[in-house]
Amino acid sequence: MNREVVVLNRERNVSLTAYLLEVGGEYRGIARRPLVLVLPGGGYRSCSDREADPVALAYLKAGYHAAVLRYSVGVHADWPHPLEDYEQAMEFLKEKAGAWSIYDDKIAVIGFSAGGHLAAAAATMAKNRPAAAILGYAVAGEDVKCCSPTAPDTVSAVDRQTPPCFLFHTRDDNVVPVMNSIRFMEALAEHDITFESHIYSYGPHGFSTCDTSVQGPSTRISRRVPNWVPDSVGWLREVFGDFGDRGEGLLEPEVRAHLSEDDGQFLSVGCTMGRVMGNPKGAEVLGAVLARAEGGEAWGSPLLQAGEMPPELKKTVDRMLVRDALGFARIGQDVLEALDRRLGEIPNNVSKDSGD
Amino acid sequence: MNREVVVLNRERNVSLTAYLLEVGGEYRGIARRPLVLVLPGGGYRSCSDREADPVALAYLKAGYHAAVLRYSVGVHADWPHPLEDYEQAMEFLKEKAGAWSIYDDKIAVIGFSAGGHLAAAAATMAKNRPAAAILGYAVAGEDVKCCSPTAPDTVSAVDRQTPPCFLFHTRDDNVVPVMNSIRFMEALAEHDITFESHIYSYGPHGFSTCDTSVQGPSTRISRRVPNWVPDSVGWLREVFGDFGDRGEGLLEPEVRAHLSEDDGQFLSVGCTMGRVMGNPKGAEVLGAVLARAEGGEAWGSPLLQAGEMPPELKKTVDRMLVRDALGFARIGQDVLEALDRRLGEIPNNVSKDSGD
Amino acid sequence: MNREVVVLNRERNVSLTAYLLEVGGEYRGIARRPLVLVLPGGGYRSCSDREADPVALAYLKAGYHAAVLRYSVGVHADWPHPLEDYEQAMEFLKEKAGAWSIYDDKIAVIGFSAGGHLAAAAATMAKNRPAAAILGYAVAGEDVKCCSPTAPDTVSAVDRQTPPCFLFHTRDDNVVPVMNSIRFMEALAEHDITFESHIYSYGPHGFSTCDTSVQGPSTRISRRVPNWVPDSVGWLREVFGDFGDRGEGLLEPEVRAHLSEDDGQFLSVGCTMGRVMGNPKGAEVLGAVLARAEGGEAWGSPLLQAGEMPPELKKTVDRMLVRDALGFARIGQDVLEALDRRLGEIPNNVSKDSGD
Amino acid sequence: MNREVVVLNRERNVSLTAYLLEVGGEYRGIARRPLVLVLPGGGYRSCSDREADPVALAYLKAGYHAAVLRYSVGVHADWPHPLEDYEQAMEFLKEKAGAWSIYDDKIAVIGFSAGGHLAAAAATMAKNRPAAAILGYAVAGEDVKCCSPTAPDTVSAVDRQTPPCFLFHTRDDNVVPVMNSIRFMEALAEHDITFESHIYSYGPHGFSTCDTSVQGPSTRISRRVPNWVPDSVGWLREVFGDFGDRGEGLLEPEVRAHLSEDDGQFLSVGCTMGRVMGNPKGAEVLGAVLARAEGGEAWGSPLLQAGEMPPELKKTVDRMLVRDALGFARIGQDVLEALDRRLGEIPNNVSKDSGD
Repeated sequence: MNREVVVLNRERNVSLTAYLLEVGGEYRGIARRPLVLVLPGGGYRSCSDREADPVALAYLKAGYHAAVLRYSVGVHADWPHPLEDYEQAMEFLKEKAGAWSIYDDKIAVIGFSAGGHLAAAAATMAKNRPAAAILGYAVAGEDVKCCSPTAPDTVSAVDRQTPPCFLFHTRDDNVVPVMNSIRFMEALAEHDITFESHIYSYGPHGFSTCDTSVQGPSTRISRRVPNWVPDSVGWLREVFGDFGDRGEGLLEPEVRAHLSEDDGQFLSVGCTMGRVMGNPKGAEVLGAVLARAEGGEAWGSPLLQAGEMPPELKKTVDRMLVRDALGFARIGQDVLEALDRRLGEIPNNVSKDSGD
Repeated sequence: MNREVVVLNRERNVSLTAYLLEVGGEYRGIARRPLVLVLPGGGYRSCSDREADPVALAYLKAGYHAAVLRYSVGVHADWPHPLEDYEQAMEFLKEKAGAWSIYDDKIAVIGFSAGGHLAAAAATMAKNRPAAAILGYAVAGEDVKCCSPTAPDTVSAVDRQTPPCFLFHTRDDNVVPVMNSIRFMEALAEHDITFESHIYSYGPHGFSTCDTSVQGPSTRISRRVPNWVPDSVGWLREVFGDFGDRGEGLLEPEVRAHLSEDDGQFLSVGCTMGRVMGNPKGAEVLGAVLARAEGGEAWGSPLLQAGEMPPELKKTVDRMLVRDALGFARIGQDVLEALDRRLGEIPNNVSKDSGD
Repeated sequence: MNREVVVLNRERNVSLTAYLLEVGGEYRGIARRPLVLVLPGGGYRSCSDREADPVALAYLKAGYHAAVLRYSVGVHADWPHPLEDYEQAMEFLKEKAGAWSIYDDKIAVIGFSAGGHLAAAAATMAKNRPAAAILGYAVAGEDVKCCSPTAPDTVSAVDRQTPPCFLFHTRDDNVVPVMNSIRFMEALAEHDITFESHIYSYGPHGFSTCDTSVQGPSTRISRRVPNWVPDSVGWLREVFGDFGDRGEGLLEPEVRAHLSEDDGQFLSVGCTMGRVMGNPKGAEVLGAVLARAEGGEAWGSPLLQAGEMPPELKKTVDRMLVRDALGFARIGQDVLEALDRRLGEIPNNVSKDSGD
Repeated sequence: MNREVVVLNRERNVSLTAYLLEVGGEYRGIARRPLVLVLPGGGYRSCSDREADPVALAYLKAGYHAAVLRYSVGVHADWPHPLEDYEQAMEFLKEKAGAWSIYDDKIAVIGFSAGGHLAAAAATMAKNRPAAAILGYAVAGEDVKCCSPTAPDTVSAVDRQTPPCFLFHTRDDNVVPVMNSIRFMEALAEHDITFESHIYSYGPHGFSTCDTSVQGPSTRISRRVPNWVPDSVGWLREVFGDFGDRGEGLLEPEVRAHLSEDDGQFLSVGCTMGRVMGNPKGAEVLGAVLARAEGGEAWGSPLLQAGEMPPELKKTVDRMLVRDALGFARIGQDVLEALDRRLGEIPNNVSKDSGD
């Protein structure tokens, strides 16, 4: 393992410390590795050491390169300085992708507290979006004004380009209220983004990896909290694909970034009901199928009377995939396949609302 | 272990199957046990066997009594039949508390899918509230209309009497959208209720315990999903208190039902800012302390200018405990103690809004 | 789940309590289940309740039927009464295999302390051998005389018909010395039997499942001890095959009962060096191959000069599989295949030493 | 984290790569850290990269410093070169203890395969014994001749100065037979040394951490094998004491190096029966107590007729602690305390057999 320290901005005291694992040789089939970029917390006043190396080490152990970004804090914390630092770090890492054997399309970001805000900003606003974001007791919403009056809310910035996210928090965090994570995952769900989240019963703010060498054994904290570390590694394996051992590089990911195919070039039964019904031709084709349906039991029936649905239920149905909705309505596989072929001829005008 | 089957309502085919562990004898210090009441899912059309005994066994193994309630479904499913069945089961269990060695104030409920809706209704609307509720891929909000048009939304019913909750769901559940769990935990957070939640990256609806003997090994599902079982046991230990081995019965719980002391008879620094500032005398006393504060860094400062806060931030501050808020404002321990004494003389008029 | 209590021997107070899970119905593809037979400990003076139901529940949760055998103890403990009780229980279970939906060739036995001695006796001496044996802080060797002077040593009884075993113990057990488990696994290794073992750093005798509801939370015991429960379930899955979910019954086991093919009808490269060299024709064929070998590096070279090996090393080489030994000697795949064909024509006279 | 590379012996290509974590600052109460010295395997022909950094990272993540020793291999492998390299590395680390903030009495060694042999040699023969040794599928016994004809058997070298050990192996390892680990733990048990061991059902030799980034996901290996990593960390915490968070340095260890007090200056009831009965004065005092004992049940009774015990049982009793043996013989606490006072006056002549 090599260690490289790069000063990105001397004036604002911004630096990148990269820990780079070996590739090739005995690591047959590992020619490059994903990288996890660590953004420590500290209320935009400092960058906590406890949320720097111990976090990097967790991902290094899992076979990922890791780097710690010490971004603009204190007198330099005014927005968008920290986000600029992030962009610069990402551009630097992409330049180094060859020399440092990084998959430049598999760079994840992890941030804690205020660093979690920066990670959430990276995931929702940056030019160089990460491929995955891990948000630890992150300041996500308007609460960020408490620690940085110039920093933006990230919840309202979630869009369809937001990458898969992994969130964790303790219920009784008395510095960053858990509502920050709840609102962020709500926005992710609304924008069709893959995520995983763990809210633990109790524990203080700022526990980092919760290893006893970081957050001492006398802390009052739920015994489940340290699970976020291996769980986030397992999740990255699903999102990036696990390491292959037959020379194929990384394996196929187990989860995709979006649940629906709403951003395809053409419609399909993998699109949401809302997307298809919102397209005049799509609505015509799908409406005809629904009209002929005999009607299923339970879940199925309300789908056939969309006009009468209460608004909250309407939103639920709009987010359902066409194939799932038709499954509930007991529509057969052959009808589904025929529908998919017809939808496949209808252009899906995503350009005008690509921002979502 | 004994098994008792009780028919609660022959007409509606409602029954309770109780599995009762031994107490006393070699189980020194265990004179009674908590009980977990299992509510299987099935869209209010049936009660799934896969979400009945396998779930009961998970909690029996942990030393809890368990019982499965087969409630009114199908033609008998009209609301409030299922909730009535639940009330009857709870009343029956409380009557049997002595004979069956149950802690009648430590009965938890666990429900899945539609059974999760019933568990959420029990937690928010029942006369006989459970002491804890575990909600598995539960239908919580208006979506319940899809499977039972007469059943009520439970999200809007969350109140301060709602017990601690544990939620789990998979992100891409294509039967009960994950938004059901997100909205429910949002309501819990708004009403100061203790909870824990785990939303896993991917997996189908209806996985029950996710043991390979229930949900076969070829299922496409995240490897982390089965963790909800031991995690929920660990959480119950925190909420109920672990088994003591020195004759003291259950140990002190590690988490309380509420984060704040907003339902105490008198105000305190353990109340929320909103509760104290909403009480004219409280506002006067606390306002005087805030006025004298030098002002802290970061998080602290906005607290001193409450009038200028954006509304979302105002809600955050209102939910903060007074002692936490003053900590951010760098107010010393002695001032805090003096304040606590003065607040302790101010009656907290909870009666008029005991529903929250 | 049903519970059946059967008195096997009224005079000696021997009974079998069976807990039987459902099959079929929603458990698609589960027409039968393996069964775990629990033998509680108690120094042949009693049968401990703490090592009865809590243990059964662990395997019931994993989808196995379970039964507790309360065997002859106290004044009835004279050998071979307990083993006779075991035989009777096995015969009873096999008779009931159809009615109770048991795989009668997949009955495992688990025993603790003196019950572990009985389980070890079942695994090594019984007419009705179990398909797998789990031995918890078991009395295996001569130490059994301390609690039952008439009971036999089981270490010296290990033979090739002994089924796969899983052992666990704490290092500082001050009732049954850890050497009992060490000697038993040594005998298993010598007889080519599959096993797994876990010796934990510290903890008292008699911890059973080590759940806090059985062995209280104030016990001084390593935090890793409770792992034996899920580990033993995972191991049973490997030995019995996991539950299939496509109607195929149990899947193919991941581990076989023996490492070598020494009990096949004919020799093969899957036999041990000792078996093949001990057969005159085998020695001739294999010797010719070894004579032509160029000799490999390191591990390989001593194999070619068997005559000069120190006796301990000779024993190691004798236990190696021919294909592994030849691999070390850098003998090519084609030579290996040709050798396998020639060995496959040589009868393996196992009958005369079937006891090993 | 800093990385330091030190060439220890240029001619033999011996080097030490140290990874050093921060101390002090935000790591309140951590002024020094234990260190884990990694000895990669490779049959004394090479030092495997797969058993170097990935292993170091596992312990770095746990808050320990780590260092990789690349010792003499290939043409330089003749014994005692590798052990000399180890001694040199230990002396170097002890010299650097201040500058690098290492607890020089808490240096553990971990070795794999041939590196496990070197670790076992360090634990049993070195001048600079480690404080703990982790042995992964280690060559421990005479089998070492297969890969290094000049290297010594370590099983017969186990003595009372051998530190606590943690062993792991797979049952069907076809390069280093599992018997190596069994024999080593047998020797540890005979010499009263604390240990923990895990033998997993199946998996190939050389799996290192078994992380998918090291041992690919297509490997046929038991799912439990990767557990050795967190288990060995938990074990080190018990042996070294966990990190304290109140400025006290490391907490009190949970396990001691020996089970008995046989190496104390005076006898005690914490000595083994063998030690006390082997001392003429001790035998007189203890014999008198035994003669007066009423005799307990079961385990107790044979202790009173030591002369008639079968030899294997005699060895068991000889290894028992006096206080445990008397407990079985139902001898009261007051008699035990009186005995302890009398034994405490009898010098324990350990000097003559300090090698054990």
